[in-house]
Amino acid sequence: MSIEEISRFFEPESVAVVGASRKPDKFGSVILQNLLTLGYPGRLYAVNRNAAEIQGVRSFPSVAAIKERVDAVIVSVPANQVPQVLKDCQQNGARNVTIISAGFSEAGEPGQKLLAEVLSIARSGHIRIVGPNTTGILNPSARFTTTFMPLVKDVRNGSVAFIAQTGMFAGVMVYHIITTQHFGISKVAGLGNKVDVDETDILEYLLQDKATRAVMVYMEGLRDPRRFLSAARTFVQDKPIVVLKGGRTPAGAKAALSHTGSLAVNSSLVTGLFKQAGVIVATELEEMIDCAKILNCESLPQGNRVGIASMSGGAMVMASDAVTEAGLVVGSLSQARLAALQKLVPEWAIASHPIDLEPLSEIVGRYESHRVGLEALLDEPGIDMGLVVTMLVGGQAEEEGLVNALAPALSTRRKPVVIVLLGPKAQCETLAARFEGMGVPTYAMVSNAARSLAALRQYATIRRI
Amino acid sequence: MSIEEISRFFEPESVAVVGASRKPDKFGSVILQNLLTLGYPGRLYAVNRNAAEIQGVRSFPSVAAIKERVDAVIVSVPANQVPQVLKDCQQNGARNVTIISAGFSEAGEPGQKLLAEVLSIARSGHIRIVGPNTTGILNPSARFTTTFMPLVKDVRNGSVAFIAQTGMFAGVMVYHIITTQHFGISKVAGLGNKVDVDETDILEYLLQDKATRAVMVYMEGLRDPRRFLSAARTFVQDKPIVVLKGGRTPAGAKAALSHTGSLAVNSSLVTGLFKQAGVIVATELEEMIDCAKILNCESLPQGNRVGIASMSGGAMVMASDAVTEAGLVVGSLSQARLAALQKLVPEWAIASHPIDLEPLSEIVGRYESHRVGLEALLDEPGIDMGLVVTMLVGGQAEEEGLVNALAPALSTRRKPVVIVLLGPKAQCETLAARFEGMGVPTYAMVSNAARSLAALRQYATIRRI
Repeated sequence: MSIEEISRFFEPESVAVVGASRKPDKFGSVILQNLLTLGYPGRLYAVNRNAAEIQGVRSFPSVAAIKERVDAVIVSVPANQVPQVLKDCQQNGARNVTIISAGFSEAGEPGQKLLAEVLSIARSGHIRIVGPNTTGILNPSARFTTTFMPLVKDVRNGSVAFIAQTGMFAGVMVYHIITTQHFGISKVAGLGNKVDVDETDILEYLLQDKATRAVMVYMEGLRDPRRFLSAARTFVQDKPIVVLKGGRTPAGAKAALSHTGSLAVNSSLVTGLFKQAGVIVATELEEMIDCAKILNCESLPQGNRVGIASMSGGAMVMASDAVTEAGLVVGSLSQARLAALQKLVPEWAIASHPIDLEPLSEIVGRYESHRVGLEALLDEPGIDMGLVVTMLVGGQAEEEGLVNALAPALSTRRKPVVIVLLGPKAQCETLAARFEGMGVPTYAMVSNAARSLAALRQYATIRRI
Repeated sequence: MSIEEISRFFEPESVAVVGASRKPDKFGSVILQNLLTLGYPGRLYAVNRNAAEIQGVRSFPSVAAIKERVDAVIVSVPANQVPQVLKDCQQNGARNVTIISAGFSEAGEPGQKLLAEVLSIARSGHIRIVGPNTTGILNPSARFTTTFMPLVKDVRNGSVAFIAQTGMFAGVMVYHIITTQHFGISKVAGLGNKVDVDETDILEYLLQDKATRAVMVYMEGLRDPRRFLSAARTFVQDKPIVVLKGGRTPAGAKAALSHTGSLAVNSSLVTGLFKQAGVIVATELEEMIDCAKILNCESLPQGNRVGIASMSGGAMVMASDAVTEAGLVVGSLSQARLAALQKLVPEWAIASHPIDLEPLSEIVGRYESHRVGLEALLDEPGIDMGLVVTMLVGGQAEEEGLVNALAPALSTRRKPVVIVLLGPKAQCETLAARFEGMGVPTYAMVSNAARSLAALRQYATIRRI
């Protein structure tokens, strides 16, 4: 299997949409519309027996009728028509087929029979298949997608890739990520029932993909664990992988069986093997996203000692608990640094760590206290990572004040820093955009921040830092 | 201690703000402004030696100089002036003092000495103290607050109360809740260093407070655990309590000591005692809010069996895992109900539980499939709670379609239902507002939904349902 073989799924120079339709609620119609919306720059063909042109795109009665060899074929027709489409692909010479249609592995004996037929044609035609039963591929930088979920023009281009053994969920995750997260997406691979192309194939492609810095994987079953683990072991020496394993419990495994036809694998065994291979294992969706965010933008910490600063004593307590419970250590400041801070607080206050910004603010002002606190954490050799918990009151002056106070130290930081934003929602969102624009991960809760720092530290140990 | 004594902290007929100021960045200035913004309807006095009037409010040189006995005194002056203010209160006859100022228990020996003086005056004057070192009280329905965090006029009035042994954090939590949550607040009690009025006092007041249906508590130390547990045991027979305990870890306990001067208590022991007393114990902030939301609006389930419906197979797998890991059981549908559903899906699909709405949608339409799925869960005796995971694509038609399809069944539901909203952010927010407007809790993630259902079930067992 060559990487080039997989790359055509993501970077095709020509594309055929089989099942392209004029009816706006048909998947085939949305897929074609998405390619037009994104401005796909390659050669685009519709395939529909009953039209010469659809949405301005020239239409052919079959893939076989297209004159050039098509790089990528997207199939959205009823399952029982898919074998014929595969034969047409074989005739055309097309070798990369993403099957959107459902009704195979998950659809009882008739589905299994159809699938066997499809696979047999694929084998003889040297055709690789993504899917079936999936939204398939999204590659914002190539303006290419196979998804039937309506897309907007400006899918944020970024450096996190997402592989998911599922159909619709991969598409909805794209919506979720592009509307709630500031990191962008490099590639999405919805694998659906995963009858051919699997996580390992995609990993091998992503390893050499310059656009991708971190990978999230949602996985239900694993056909060839040994091959995946071996690929993962190599991969994580370059880029981090966060895996969320669905079907961890008997009930989840049962649901997975009817979802993608995946057989359950012993969950704690898999988790252990993943961790041994250097994969970060998330236990739920938000954790996977949280971890990908920090792994995508932060340098790796030299140790496990976290420094904490906040205006709120309660936040410092919660952060200390969260850091400890995440398996990290609340660091400490040297006597010299504490003495220096002591000079900046009122007489009644005792400088200590976590750094209470409130007394500092009474002398140096509120925004300046954040600068002083952050710089103390960054300069202190006893601290490996910084966690600043803001207490926001609201207003643009506060936004400017905090950004101006923190930006210089953040832009030259030599250790990872995360910022927790607590306060009025609108302001948390504005500041999240500003800090993440500087490559600083932000979180709404200290517990999310702490477990993300722990994942970062875990990845550092994998990389032997 | 009478409940009336505590009620004056929340529902005073007259209020004096000591330290009221014209300088807009002074806490005393913001406190007065907040009372004016909220439209506090009682008699309001400023106390400031150097002014006859502040922000249009008549000012007195001291509390002692005010002619009537003042129900509630808010003190925001430097710590060393507080003993004199207390003497003035004693002279006035005022018995409810909220001390905003910091610089007592957390401020070393001089602070401890000041505190002893304050407590001694309070004792001889029969004065109760909230604080010091806190934002204090917020009671939206009485348009009353002691907070120095700038408030907007429309603090959402609701039925969740929040007690917090902290200062600024309670205030920022109010911002967070009113801007991210659809449930409103009935009362907030920031207890700061908690030198006098504590959680138990507030609980006794809230037990008879008709506006309060559920209580969240953030607690660091506990002076009299026996008294709290006894009050909690009575309280939970009427209304649920969710506690987040800060200082669970050695590092957190150390931070708590310098924050509120609270000594650490053995955490697992406390957790065990809390659970025995019928208190829901949260492990982090978001969980406390999530649990309060469901406890505030849902009826109690008869059992622990959760029914799941979604358009996404991946979501059903994740939901099944999350429900199981939360200690609940993924329920099942009767043969008769499965047979009825089988008639509504295409030939290739096999009706099962969790309910896959996708094949249903191919026959009855997308929105109608949600109605069919929800009603199957609600009608099924083998299901105690419903969990619907939406997969949103975007657009107003989808919003109307889903709300219209689900509203009738939701409005007459006889078992708890929660909805997970996954998709484009703007639409998730719109639908959250609409469903929560119907009293249906919504969550962004299945794991949050599952642990909230588990808390609801836990509370049902406490109430012997």
